[in-house]
Amino acid sequence: MGIRSLISPSSSSIRIPLGEAGRAGWGDRMDPLRKKLNRVVLGPGGEFDLIRQLVGPEEPLGQGVLVGSGDDCTVLEGGWVVSTDLSVEGVHFRREWVTLEEAGYRAAAAALSDLAAMAAEPIGALLSMALDPLRASSDALELQRGVAEACRVEGIRILGGDMARSPGPLVLDIVVIGRADSPVLRAGTEVGDELWVTGWLGGSGAAVALWKQGSHPPDDLREAFARPRPRIREARWLAGRVPLHGLIDLSDGLAGDSGHLAAASGLSLVLREASIPLHPALQGVPGLGDDPLHFPLEGGEDYELCFTVAPGSLDEWVGSFQDAFGIPLTKVGRATGGTGVFLEAAEGRIRPLERHGYSHFSGEEEG
Amino acid sequence: MGIRSLISPSSSSIRIPLGEAGRAGWGDRMDPLRKKLNRVVLGPGGEFDLIRQLVGPEEPLGQGVLVGSGDDCTVLEGGWVVSTDLSVEGVHFRREWVTLEEAGYRAAAAALSDLAAMAAEPIGALLSMALDPLRASSDALELQRGVAEACRVEGIRILGGDMARSPGPLVLDIVVIGRADSPVLRAGTEVGDELWVTGWLGGSGAAVALWKQGSHPPDDLREAFARPRPRIREARWLAGRVPLHGLIDLSDGLAGDSGHLAAASGLSLVLREASIPLHPALQGVPGLGDDPLHFPLEGGEDYELCFTVAPGSLDEWVGSFQDAFGIPLTKVGRATGGTGVFLEAAEGRIRPLERHGYSHFSGEEEG
Repeated sequence: MGIRSLISPSSSSIRIPLGEAGRAGWGDRMDPLRKKLNRVVLGPGGEFDLIRQLVGPEEPLGQGVLVGSGDDCTVLEGGWVVSTDLSVEGVHFRREWVTLEEAGYRAAAAALSDLAAMAAEPIGALLSMALDPLRASSDALELQRGVAEACRVEGIRILGGDMARSPGPLVLDIVVIGRADSPVLRAGTEVGDELWVTGWLGGSGAAVALWKQGSHPPDDLREAFARPRPRIREARWLAGRVPLHGLIDLSDGLAGDSGHLAAASGLSLVLREASIPLHPALQGVPGLGDDPLHFPLEGGEDYELCFTVAPGSLDEWVGSFQDAFGIPLTKVGRATGGTGVFLEAAEGRIRPLERHGYSHFSGEEEG
Repeated sequence: MGIRSLISPSSSSIRIPLGEAGRAGWGDRMDPLRKKLNRVVLGPGGEFDLIRQLVGPEEPLGQGVLVGSGDDCTVLEGGWVVSTDLSVEGVHFRREWVTLEEAGYRAAAAALSDLAAMAAEPIGALLSMALDPLRASSDALELQRGVAEACRVEGIRILGGDMARSPGPLVLDIVVIGRADSPVLRAGTEVGDELWVTGWLGGSGAAVALWKQGSHPPDDLREAFARPRPRIREARWLAGRVPLHGLIDLSDGLAGDSGHLAAASGLSLVLREASIPLHPALQGVPGLGDDPLHFPLEGGEDYELCFTVAPGSLDEWVGSFQDAFGIPLTKVGRATGGTGVFLEAAEGRIRPLERHGYSHFSGEEEG
């Protein structure tokens, strides 16, 4: 793709040029960007406070490391991107809900979704598993089948990994390796930008809610949980047509993840309640309560894309996107000054979204 | 370092040239090597049988992936190397044995040791932790302090990672990212080569044996377990002076790991019993049984280097290595035809080493 300008003159998109320039090393003009990127900017929440504590202050990144913590992937010179993603039995999945093959599939899909969140091309995966020694062999093979299938869908394979005994739950850690000439970061949104999402939201969270009540989710909701599709092709299609200003994947819910987007650019995002594309299979399912928006906003694990673009820039592409991928592309909000994420009701009332997505350390049990 | 010849004319060393050639893509002459490297060649053992099953057959590697499974790191175009390493509470460490800071330190050292095993320069690390939600914050900070310290010793920092709740033991997964102009692989040994190791062996395994008996290991043995030193500088020093034919780090014990070296080159290795550099702190410690060689051979987690060189090529460097690093450099055996690993007793009798290192899935509990 050659060299792109650091800040495209026609937009505020922060794209890292990684063609020849990236390979030849960074010139002085890159330093302000490197400094800017070398920050951990995350939305609010106890988990993210902890991450802010864990990741050191603004120490220099390693040689050839272009983006460190605080985005979906680490970005290395030459356009390589790397991310790591945990999946824990009893937290991310339960054996009563899914087969181990499905658990492996969704763990890999979740990890691959971090490549989608950079608009990167997938290259390979490393699979680590902590296994019950008494059934290690059969469990490992079943998990691996699912991981390998999710990889195959994206045209990649398992390149390596690690295995260990676990006296507790199954734990998977999946490292994904990808490549992008111009990885799209979380930062880069400007006031006035539009916020968009791909696909239907809330299906996975609703399935979990039904399982926890002892019900069986309808097939479409179960499928949303068990076999999410990382939006890798969709992200690359979009990034190839329109400058994406900020991009993230929806792993923790629209509230929390748009909070990261807002924080990364130092502004606020206002979601229009009526525009949120609620998964159609939530309609009429008993047991989901009287606030179905809870699922897209807080449910998490939809693994759809959430991104900002300049006003009007995407409109001409909506039809062909939907034709190409068979999923909706929906404008759900806008960027304004201030901080945080707000929800605008149909009648125009705007309220701040207090709770921001699933928290691993709130004491509440998910799975 | 520029381009090196694929197979150096003066030796059988398989080094992957990753200067301009690696960046410009692979020419046709690289294909036989790529095919050769795209195999999983591991020593015997149930765990490795499982790995052979898990990693697909000879499918093509991803674009820009030079080495996949079966070596210590994945090698990417541009000289990037990536490895992932699990550490599980109750398996790799116990809270009664080490502080969580030490557990983090040794988990990172173990991961970094995979960079040493490629003679790579460390660049950064990703840290994933599955944590008890009731003490997540304090546990995470303590583990992270240890990981960060091990990183700091090697001049790198934590670039990112993941966190999740765990209803079971603490689990760490540490991804290390490094760079090498000419990563040294496991394969490349020739019949007649000498087998060498760095440092003292068996200290870590002896500490574990003493803890399991309810004893307290002497300080030096405890230190060998709690604060292993990845031999990154040592590997780079050696690789810069002498063609290393095959290279691995000692994570599973000299028997198992030299088994991988032997298998990678399709020959056998004969260890000279009297030459194995037994950790001096094992002398005279009660409770270690009448076969102290068990610890270097089977104990594992010494994280020293084990490598082969052409006969006589290293002799002139032994003194300056020991002066520079303060640890011994010892010739422990030789490569011959056949398969497997053999132990040669002082009186010349040679027997095959049947058990090959620590197995995660033998049913025996380590930690």
